[in-house]
Amino acid sequence: MKKHDQDFMKRQNRLTVFEIIKSQQPISRAAIAKQTGMSPTTVSRIVAELTEEGYLLETEQVSAGLGRKSTLLAMVDAAVLSVGVELDRHRIHIGIVDIQGNVVAKTDYARATDESVNATLERIGAEIDRLTKSNEIDCGRLIGIGVGLPGIVDNEKGVVVFSVQLGWKNVALAEKLKAITGYEVAIDNELKVKALAEHLKGAAIGSSRTAMLGFGNGVGSALIVDGEIDRGKTNSAGEIGHTTIDPNGMMCDCGKAGCLQTYINIHSLLSEANKIRPVRTIEELFEARRAGERWAVYLVDRALMYMAITINNVVCMHNPDTVIMSGELTDKFPEIYEEVAELCIKRFVWEPLRGTFAIRPSELSGQGVVIGSGLMSQNCFFALE
Amino acid sequence: MKKHDQDFMKRQNRLTVFEIIKSQQPISRAAIAKQTGMSPTTVSRIVAELTEEGYLLETEQVSAGLGRKSTLLAMVDAAVLSVGVELDRHRIHIGIVDIQGNVVAKTDYARATDESVNATLERIGAEIDRLTKSNEIDCGRLIGIGVGLPGIVDNEKGVVVFSVQLGWKNVALAEKLKAITGYEVAIDNELKVKALAEHLKGAAIGSSRTAMLGFGNGVGSALIVDGEIDRGKTNSAGEIGHTTIDPNGMMCDCGKAGCLQTYINIHSLLSEANKIRPVRTIEELFEARRAGERWAVYLVDRALMYMAITINNVVCMHNPDTVIMSGELTDKFPEIYEEVAELCIKRFVWEPLRGTFAIRPSELSGQGVVIGSGLMSQNCFFALE
Repeated sequence: MKKHDQDFMKRQNRLTVFEIIKSQQPISRAAIAKQTGMSPTTVSRIVAELTEEGYLLETEQVSAGLGRKSTLLAMVDAAVLSVGVELDRHRIHIGIVDIQGNVVAKTDYARATDESVNATLERIGAEIDRLTKSNEIDCGRLIGIGVGLPGIVDNEKGVVVFSVQLGWKNVALAEKLKAITGYEVAIDNELKVKALAEHLKGAAIGSSRTAMLGFGNGVGSALIVDGEIDRGKTNSAGEIGHTTIDPNGMMCDCGKAGCLQTYINIHSLLSEANKIRPVRTIEELFEARRAGERWAVYLVDRALMYMAITINNVVCMHNPDTVIMSGELTDKFPEIYEEVAELCIKRFVWEPLRGTFAIRPSELSGQGVVIGSGLMSQNCFFALE
Repeated sequence: MKKHDQDFMKRQNRLTVFEIIKSQQPISRAAIAKQTGMSPTTVSRIVAELTEEGYLLETEQVSAGLGRKSTLLAMVDAAVLSVGVELDRHRIHIGIVDIQGNVVAKTDYARATDESVNATLERIGAEIDRLTKSNEIDCGRLIGIGVGLPGIVDNEKGVVVFSVQLGWKNVALAEKLKAITGYEVAIDNELKVKALAEHLKGAAIGSSRTAMLGFGNGVGSALIVDGEIDRGKTNSAGEIGHTTIDPNGMMCDCGKAGCLQTYINIHSLLSEANKIRPVRTIEELFEARRAGERWAVYLVDRALMYMAITINNVVCMHNPDTVIMSGELTDKFPEIYEEVAELCIKRFVWEPLRGTFAIRPSELSGQGVVIGSGLMSQNCFFALE
């Protein structure tokens, strides 16, 4: 069983110590050992490593019980920083993220959609350099870079397997960006890191099982269980957009008919709208709906119905306590959140699961991917030995 | 974070020690401590408990390194037995299961569909008693009873929340059966324990992520990750049968229209068939299909197509390495397995996930629930303190 593999347990132990100190500081070595059942030797070894690396400090002695003194440990919050990058087709966002998920500095800029992989990564490297210099960030404190992007990502190998949006296939992103910047690079699907950010820092604080839905140029889902991303065997869990809804439905760009996302994503909506009259942007479509044009009412109402169906389907499969709605559609038209939530309650959520979960809009929308990528990079770092 | 809660970690540590000894025996206390990072004190305490309870024995001394001797630990396989019960509407199966998941004795009998809860449980108690006596099972070795049944089960409280098939609602099954038999009782949804059995003992040995599909009087799914059942927040993860496929589709008994199971389950198929001519059993429907009656060909082919869609949808959501097909439909008509697998490969599985998983028929079909329930009962026992 992989989960009892020795290396795996060592990494888990280091991450566990890190997480306990982060959330319960100040805390003693003895308390960590007692709480986890780890040996004092193991705890002391991990604490020594983290202290030597400058991430922990020993705080005041307190009298414990019979007058004995014990040393308490705390995180040096400012000692740990990471870079979070949101790599999108048209725009790149970069932020410096601290251990609590705060963005201490940030920048963003446009990307040409036909820009080469190397040009994109060189520019990211240069922008990180500029950002740290202009904000006088001590680069010794940067423990790594996290990148969130749309597509199928092999997070273990650091490879972008396939991204329709970027037009990339089998790109060794982590290796290339490390060569440019010198930092360790962790990469993942944007929705997965965004879900992690909402779970740790946004709309799903306190949730133990968060399902995140993204409605935009595609439809995707991600699940976080107790602070960990549910990745699946090949890091592809959550591809709800390609679940088949109607085998006789519209063609999806994946080559199948009737994928769930064909009823919802922006590209499909515009393609359908243009059968009626020229519509260039999703804003125009929603404007036509507001003006009462019947075809636009029909098209958008149908999309909202399928968004409610998406929520039902993710709830039936994952049984989460929280569902977060995010993505370009909900960011641009926040009014649809209430409409979809009402459709869920009135019609589309399976009766026995009503009341088992809360639906919430994303809180971090603009910064979610940057924060989540930064936190992911920190988790990867503290799980290493 | 719940996963770092002290009681949780204590239970996990005990289960970890149990699982390591079970899979790596004979093994020394020192090796367990080294592998897990637990303190020698913690390991010794857990080993002492398990030894005192009679589940472990110390085996030969071997020279380790510089001539020092260390004692090795092994499971007393025969010391641990549990009862697995498959509680179905029409029939009840009971087996005595050992620590390796072998069924060492079994029985089964018909249940009247209108039998009361108490009568059903009294009979189960009496049959367990008869089974152990006639097979001269030492009841001191029975550590508990596991029950698998169709419906929504609160496994933590031991309550059947809702079972359409049994017609039960809020039945405190574990408490009642414990009062009758004196044994600790663990209960769960039948498909979840069946998945556990296939994962540990059947068609998915070696898989780290097994998705189990059940096609019968309902359609359900279950996911096992590294030997653990993925339960969701209220133990309802995997209700794929009630994901909505067509908002304008047929009514489901849940009160929604177009649930996935309305295209597949036996009840729906017979209901549709009877619009054409009287068909009493699913066997008659398949016979009509074999005879080339076009309506039957259409109806069954459509069901098979939706079974392939079910596989695509579960693969997109869970990204498993193995998908197991089980249930009354595949048990009675094993020929459909090949047809569905071919539909998956040719048409219905999303291109990027082809080749990431194997589709297999259930191996334990008849005994899966009994074995899984028995193993679940053992896991509950060894995770207790």
